[in-house]
Amino acid sequence: MFESAELGHKVDKKTYEAELPALREALLDAQYDLIESRAFPVVMIVSGVNGGGRRESVRLLNAWLDARHIDTHGLGEPSDEERDRPPMWRFWRLLPPKGRMTIFQGSWYSQALIDRVYGRSKVADLEEAMERNLRFEQMLADEGALILKFWFHLSKKAQEKRLKSLEKDPLTRWRVTERDWEHFKLYDRFYKTASHALRMTSTADAPWYIIEGTDERYRNLTLGKIVLTALRKRLELTQPPPRPLATLPSLPRVDEQNLLRKLDMTLRLPKKTYEKQLETYQGRLALLTREPGFQNISVVVVFEGVDAAGKGGAIRRIISALDARMYQIIPVAAPTDEERAHPYLWRFWRHIPRRGRLAIFDRSWYGRVLVERVEGFCSEYDWMRAYNEINDFEAQLVEHHIVLVKFWLAISKDEQLRRFKAREQTGFKRFKITEEDWRNREKWDQYEEAVCDMIDRTSTEIAPWTLVEAEDKNYARIKVLKTLCERIEAAL
Amino acid sequence: MFESAELGHKVDKKTYEAELPALREALLDAQYDLIESRAFPVVMIVSGVNGGGRRESVRLLNAWLDARHIDTHGLGEPSDEERDRPPMWRFWRLLPPKGRMTIFQGSWYSQALIDRVYGRSKVADLEEAMERNLRFEQMLADEGALILKFWFHLSKKAQEKRLKSLEKDPLTRWRVTERDWEHFKLYDRFYKTASHALRMTSTADAPWYIIEGTDERYRNLTLGKIVLTALRKRLELTQPPPRPLATLPSLPRVDEQNLLRKLDMTLRLPKKTYEKQLETYQGRLALLTREPGFQNISVVVVFEGVDAAGKGGAIRRIISALDARMYQIIPVAAPTDEERAHPYLWRFWRHIPRRGRLAIFDRSWYGRVLVERVEGFCSEYDWMRAYNEINDFEAQLVEHHIVLVKFWLAISKDEQLRRFKAREQTGFKRFKITEEDWRNREKWDQYEEAVCDMIDRTSTEIAPWTLVEAEDKNYARIKVLKTLCERIEAAL
Repeated sequence: MFESAELGHKVDKKTYEAELPALREALLDAQYDLIESRAFPVVMIVSGVNGGGRRESVRLLNAWLDARHIDTHGLGEPSDEERDRPPMWRFWRLLPPKGRMTIFQGSWYSQALIDRVYGRSKVADLEEAMERNLRFEQMLADEGALILKFWFHLSKKAQEKRLKSLEKDPLTRWRVTERDWEHFKLYDRFYKTASHALRMTSTADAPWYIIEGTDERYRNLTLGKIVLTALRKRLELTQPPPRPLATLPSLPRVDEQNLLRKLDMTLRLPKKTYEKQLETYQGRLALLTREPGFQNISVVVVFEGVDAAGKGGAIRRIISALDARMYQIIPVAAPTDEERAHPYLWRFWRHIPRRGRLAIFDRSWYGRVLVERVEGFCSEYDWMRAYNEINDFEAQLVEHHIVLVKFWLAISKDEQLRRFKAREQTGFKRFKITEEDWRNREKWDQYEEAVCDMIDRTSTEIAPWTLVEAEDKNYARIKVLKTLCERIEAAL
Repeated sequence: MFESAELGHKVDKKTYEAELPALREALLDAQYDLIESRAFPVVMIVSGVNGGGRRESVRLLNAWLDARHIDTHGLGEPSDEERDRPPMWRFWRLLPPKGRMTIFQGSWYSQALIDRVYGRSKVADLEEAMERNLRFEQMLADEGALILKFWFHLSKKAQEKRLKSLEKDPLTRWRVTERDWEHFKLYDRFYKTASHALRMTSTADAPWYIIEGTDERYRNLTLGKIVLTALRKRLELTQPPPRPLATLPSLPRVDEQNLLRKLDMTLRLPKKTYEKQLETYQGRLALLTREPGFQNISVVVVFEGVDAAGKGGAIRRIISALDARMYQIIPVAAPTDEERAHPYLWRFWRHIPRRGRLAIFDRSWYGRVLVERVEGFCSEYDWMRAYNEINDFEAQLVEHHIVLVKFWLAISKDEQLRRFKAREQTGFKRFKITEEDWRNREKWDQYEEAVCDMIDRTSTEIAPWTLVEAEDKNYARIKVLKTLCERIEAAL
């Protein structure tokens, strides 16, 4: 893996100075083309051995390119904010929008490598982390990101020499700490671990570039040329890289049965029973959130359902039991420009709550396999792969002790019509009914199919869907509250 | 995951009989179009719960389609031949060529599921196996295969009912064994495990189709329609599904250094020393292969190198130390038609040796990233992804205690010319020099680049390359023999 980066690559001063001006100019040009076209985001990882030139390379890129359009993140220990969320959260929130570059010094590789080198984890843990990274980068590539992963390498000898020469010079002695020498003792372990990790994660979409770090001029020219060529090659594509066609059909509808039609829409709750139960369950919910154990978990509630299914009403019955500092409601509409410039799930990762808190999504990431699928806002391949990406996303939440409760509020087509008409007649509800609602209604069957596929593909053992018979609002609200209480209880 | 397959789907006799003739005809038509076009291979998995209709569905497909063009494999326990190879070997050798269909009843999922259900493995093992399956299916999809994965499901109640009704009937009682009831007791565990596995491995390229198995007519129609639609959709593509463009550049050549140029080509061995060492190492090799421990490993030797680098000579010096029943030499030239119709690595998987044996590859799977890359015989994306596929392939060999030794025989351009000329002048060697050899020589620099990339990307901690200075044949042969002995010794 590292053979080519131990050859003693070198560039003499004359060659370097002759090549530099043209390279820098071309790099700047490419960056401006990127900014102007907003064609894709650039995700860059700078890693490697101590003293291999990571810091210097980050500085260099910021000097050669227009630093105002680069975000550089030197990620060390996670903050308390970050520790409260799944490990990938800190990287998701730093992903660049189209047209920008982000340089990660310290990335989704660092922790797993360090844990393994220090013997705090097993080979299997390293491999699991690398598989997670592969999925993450596959998603980034599918979303159009240009991924550049650099590994700056020094041979054992070169690293030792470098530390010694820094120590000798009184001016640079301060740079060598005991920790550096400790690290050096682990060189062989680090070499082996990195070799394994890099082998697993060097893919056609996101290969590792291993650069010998000994000679600064060689290192700089190599780095600059890779960045330039990669930017240019991608910019020259007149259209985004073609995605594979999803040629596989959905499950055909062979009979009239489906999950939604099977629901008992006659379920009802008389007003008196409703009021009594509402009090009971709201009280239970309030107490649950005050239990000490609640500080170790968090709760994500997802509401999906056709227009006028009663999502808002159900949400209000939940929050009236909660301390306002404890929850956040996230209404999901069409994405903003900023959201559109990021990978699809970015806008949802942003709102993952800290421990001890609740986030309630009024519509959610399922939009991709519902409205975006039915309305053709994304390609077939995009919504087909979304099932996986969503399952993967939710698995990360659940692994991090987030209680994930997903509700589908089901009403009949007739009941929707009644509610639409009632809304039109009630002054203060008129804003709730739009042309779009009527248009969506025309595609009832297509939505029904999309909903059934969604439940089939994303109702998993770790994050099941709860289908709520919502023809009667009272019944629906109590079922929601009761389910939520039970799921939190089970987690505590 | 299984919700939709527990609804009690049903199709009445009349509907079934009305739909059947057209469906069967269309299926046959589609199959003949597939056979004629030889456009892609079809890989089908039939799995699910006991009594869900797996066997019946396999029979059905063989009845509805032209069975002469279908291979059906009911895989149970691996044979001794299969146990001697890495677990995926048995599936690789059964993969269909373009234009054919293979139905796997018992697949790369079975063992991992069963091990987990019976508590013989951990969740992490299951996940590792599923990740391996994902990579395998990704490769199949990249190679153009149509992958159809069916899971026939019964609810717990339905399965119990089925077993009881079979038992009641004196005519079918024999079909219910104690083992079936034992399996039934594990239903919940099986449900959970399958749910986890299916969630992880349902991808856009190879989604799982979960079919309710209770009603035979529903099951048959659903299966038939999926196969038909999938075949038709893929056949209608006028060209193979577009592959992503590999827009990422290789490592640029910034200075004149590279792995090959760094080799010391003056290394030489005087004839006398050579003859003595040859005897020593051949003896050592012979003894090693006779050690009892050798029966638990096997050896795969790969020879790569430019034309006239001395591969054949080195191979002859190895085999003269070996019992002829013990080894096989696999000369790799342009692929045959049959090989071309299979996924790239198929032709190499075929030759993986049993335990206690050696396979010596004279050229190898590295052709894809050498000659196929340089000559443009495959797309950039194809050779870029090959590095991963090769590393994954080799990792499977090494995990299975196969000693994998890879030699690159390096000679200078001048030395090659000398040898070419000598071959032209020596009568009995004239067949060894062709027009093609001269043409390849013109692309020396491109080959050199491809070789360096290959070593960088595939010299891993588990399967390193050994670069052999082969300017002097004697020196090269001894280095090869010595390395081989050392690697086998380390493994014993």
